[in-house]
Amino acid sequence: MSAKATTPSDLEIARAVTLRPIEEIAASAGIPADALELYGRYKAKIDVERLPPADQLGRVVLVSAISPTPAGEGKSTLTVGLADSLARAGRRTMVALREPSLGPILGLKGGATGGGRSQVLPMEDINLHFTGDFHAITSANNALCALIDNHVFHGNELGIDPRRVTFRRVMDMNDRALREIVVGLGGPTQGVPRQDGFDITVASEVMAVFCLAKDATDLADRLARITIGYTYSRKPVTVADLGAEGVMAMLLKDAIKPNLVQTIAGTPALIHGGPFANIAHGCNSVIATTTARRLAEIVVTEAGFGADLGAEKFVDIKARSADVAPSVVVLVTTVRALKMHGGVPKDCLAEPDADALARGMPNLARHVATVRRFGLEPVVAVNRFSSDSTEELDTVLAWCSRAGVRAAVADVWGRGGGGDGGDELAREVLAALEAPGQCRQLYPLALPVDEKIRTIVRDVYGGADVEFSDLARRQLAQIEENGWGGLPVCMAKTQYSFTDDATQLGAPEGFTVHVRELWPRTGAGFIVAVTGALMTMPGLPAHPAALRMRLDDDGRPVGLF
Amino acid sequence: MSAKATTPSDLEIARAVTLRPIEEIAASAGIPADALELYGRYKAKIDVERLPPADQLGRVVLVSAISPTPAGEGKSTLTVGLADSLARAGRRTMVALREPSLGPILGLKGGATGGGRSQVLPMEDINLHFTGDFHAITSANNALCALIDNHVFHGNELGIDPRRVTFRRVMDMNDRALREIVVGLGGPTQGVPRQDGFDITVASEVMAVFCLAKDATDLADRLARITIGYTYSRKPVTVADLGAEGVMAMLLKDAIKPNLVQTIAGTPALIHGGPFANIAHGCNSVIATTTARRLAEIVVTEAGFGADLGAEKFVDIKARSADVAPSVVVLVTTVRALKMHGGVPKDCLAEPDADALARGMPNLARHVATVRRFGLEPVVAVNRFSSDSTEELDTVLAWCSRAGVRAAVADVWGRGGGGDGGDELAREVLAALEAPGQCRQLYPLALPVDEKIRTIVRDVYGGADVEFSDLARRQLAQIEENGWGGLPVCMAKTQYSFTDDATQLGAPEGFTVHVRELWPRTGAGFIVAVTGALMTMPGLPAHPAALRMRLDDDGRPVGLF
Repeated sequence: MSAKATTPSDLEIARAVTLRPIEEIAASAGIPADALELYGRYKAKIDVERLPPADQLGRVVLVSAISPTPAGEGKSTLTVGLADSLARAGRRTMVALREPSLGPILGLKGGATGGGRSQVLPMEDINLHFTGDFHAITSANNALCALIDNHVFHGNELGIDPRRVTFRRVMDMNDRALREIVVGLGGPTQGVPRQDGFDITVASEVMAVFCLAKDATDLADRLARITIGYTYSRKPVTVADLGAEGVMAMLLKDAIKPNLVQTIAGTPALIHGGPFANIAHGCNSVIATTTARRLAEIVVTEAGFGADLGAEKFVDIKARSADVAPSVVVLVTTVRALKMHGGVPKDCLAEPDADALARGMPNLARHVATVRRFGLEPVVAVNRFSSDSTEELDTVLAWCSRAGVRAAVADVWGRGGGGDGGDELAREVLAALEAPGQCRQLYPLALPVDEKIRTIVRDVYGGADVEFSDLARRQLAQIEENGWGGLPVCMAKTQYSFTDDATQLGAPEGFTVHVRELWPRTGAGFIVAVTGALMTMPGLPAHPAALRMRLDDDGRPVGLF
Repeated sequence: MSAKATTPSDLEIARAVTLRPIEEIAASAGIPADALELYGRYKAKIDVERLPPADQLGRVVLVSAISPTPAGEGKSTLTVGLADSLARAGRRTMVALREPSLGPILGLKGGATGGGRSQVLPMEDINLHFTGDFHAITSANNALCALIDNHVFHGNELGIDPRRVTFRRVMDMNDRALREIVVGLGGPTQGVPRQDGFDITVASEVMAVFCLAKDATDLADRLARITIGYTYSRKPVTVADLGAEGVMAMLLKDAIKPNLVQTIAGTPALIHGGPFANIAHGCNSVIATTTARRLAEIVVTEAGFGADLGAEKFVDIKARSADVAPSVVVLVTTVRALKMHGGVPKDCLAEPDADALARGMPNLARHVATVRRFGLEPVVAVNRFSSDSTEELDTVLAWCSRAGVRAAVADVWGRGGGGDGGDELAREVLAALEAPGQCRQLYPLALPVDEKIRTIVRDVYGGADVEFSDLARRQLAQIEENGWGGLPVCMAKTQYSFTDDATQLGAPEGFTVHVRELWPRTGAGFIVAVTGALMTMPGLPAHPAALRMRLDDDGRPVGLF
């Protein structure tokens, strides 16, 4: 993150680490050998059924953030580093994180397993195929699509309207050309032509279902409830109507087992599932979080984007349907992001600017208020960059002190949580855990869908109102008609602003959020409220990271970072 | 295969077997523990670099067949059973087979890991995702496609003509709707529209490359040579021109390691790679075959379709570029198929018909002649079905005796090679191995492409001549121009007939084969000669096997067979 030019790359740091055999990591986490399914020497799947009964469930520390800069505030790195610091403080700790998506890795990111001295390993494997979970999810998704088009082709007994098939094919790739396509061309023996498109695998509803399922039975039940489209008479068609939930669950039988790896410091980590943070809820699987709670005293996990999106969805979607409520929320904050919210252009964030920093604080303040609204106490983690001055860091800490918010500076990238980079933060988190909050949802499910959205916009974003497009208004009525009004809402909004306009930084007030469309996700169990432009299939840049990747003469990957 | 209604299903037989830990199987095969990468308890990848040097290389027994019935003659089952029988006879034996493709399993097949008492296990895993090799091949293929369209989108420096991109996306699925599609729709920010289509993964040139590569370096070199299309000025564009071979090889770094499993009888089996037998060469990876040769005294492996296609490609393509020449070729023959070649309709093959059987023998005779033309001695394996009468079986054996061909009846499906179902066949194979042939290719590479095709049609199929379409004639000229004339030929022809017309059974003579198109596969290193209709993306039937698949209450797959 900081001073990358003069320090070793993430891959170089990762390579210098001597990994412990995964059996040792498992034993240290209390996982019996017969619950382990090895994938090479340093990865294993856990057969949750074979775990011993837990006396007590671990506490969940949720790592969230302020509204981020485009480069991100280092949430994954901090999640790993904090867990290492808590382990160093003698607490039985486990990390729960999302699996990286191959598409963005080949595009710009190069890797997504933390950074510097705070990484999960083996990063070369986790970033490439890992244990095949995303491939299994892709297969299950696309088997359903093949079965849908095949049903229409062979007589279409259910009367599916090919123009109203809403369930799309997926690929774990950034492939712009597949966003909008026409399938089924070539004449009557080749299929029924219709408009279609591919999403990236992390945007699949199967991924969301996979990550919200409590166990294999719940997984099959949720798969069965997925709406794939509508009949000519506008009635919803589900996976159960096609009878495809069985084969989909079968294709996911191994993927659904959480994956065990280790951090650089040897802390056990479960990396499992990875839904998009915009059209889905953006955190690792419920199964990984609940498994970690059975094994560890403290579970450090992450939610995508800022607290307005990630923490809100964690509380209102994930923790509503599963026993994973956080006890403490860590808000990752950087001096750079605060200066950006104070008006500094993205290219100048390394330069000191006390006034801009002060002007940016209201963004943090609003996220702090959000966390408290959930009944939880925030801990601000100032993620240190080498360009930060001591004065700037002190300004943030002083603000937190005045606001009565626990805070600490951490340098888990440079010094590692296994080193002393997160000791202070760990102390603050442990102190907060002494008096944990009582997590509560923001709204009751009985509230109408539009009112749920208004509640989020007013109480979390600080906005004034919500405007629904004509289409969204019609969809609200259909949602009530179809009996889906009792589902929670999943906001698809830019992470850069509290508003639906990515350029409105800081903490704007009095704004209106525009809901363009509503997408029922009846398997996952939420209604996606789409605001602004939305990309469910990213593209590759002009110079993709992929073109720098290769194997060296020893067969080791080069170009991941 | 025989009497399935009254006997347990393949899945039931497989479930009743107590598998040995894969470490034990590896140890029995002489694979050191540090060369094993476990994938669960019963699968492992082998790090070939860590194998001990081999004193002597094992002999290759190639299992091929006569022209098959649509139900197949049980080649995989016989390959497994013969290996078990050879092991039972005290010979250090290893199986090398193709990995099954998910698409056909979800369509009609339900599974592809042998059958009855002659299966490779764990069949539930091998048939579903296995160790992820096909997913990695799919990713490498589709990463290349994304990079191609991205190159065209971002300025198209190489001048690729979007109408002349020949490299297609793939998916391991039977998905008719993806055969012919239009991609890149949605306006200038979404891509450059063009006609495109998906093939099934086993039809990918990446799969063919993967299976012909001798090692990781050869893999990257072959990937670099793949032709992806042509420029506006009709010059070929390769993967190397795009610089994509590095990332593709990286995505295949684990997949390229062969997979170790076991047969029901505990014989070690390498299951690795699985190219189509029509537009590719249809056998497991060179790496699996050569690895098995290093470890075992006898390697039993299979080639797709009948000997006219599978054995011919094994000799002229695979054994030309790698050290895998067979010592003996087993021709799997069934009474049913011979009766079909003698004119009995498919529905009546269970009824005795001595005349039809006699009329069908010339089909076997021509395959016997083909094997001898390669310098090898055939062993006819009469794969017994419960409907076969002793008289019928004796008729076939008597014919073989008259023709001076070793032959034996085998019942490896019902009695297993681990039982006594293959003892006689094993004796014949061992006797043949005492005086193994000297494998020779059918044609020299220096022969022009059209003459190579004529040689195959005359000397293997028994045809009179070859007719090239106008397009194929133009392509012949382009192939010479582009310097590809020295590549061997890969015939894409129906497996049901020696001719290019699937209805011409038996052993027709004097026919003309029509070559419709020629597809240069410069990475794999062959020219595909397309005759007749060709399906590179299968469809699902009206009642797909997938809709019978699910997990039972214990989380075990149901509906695989």
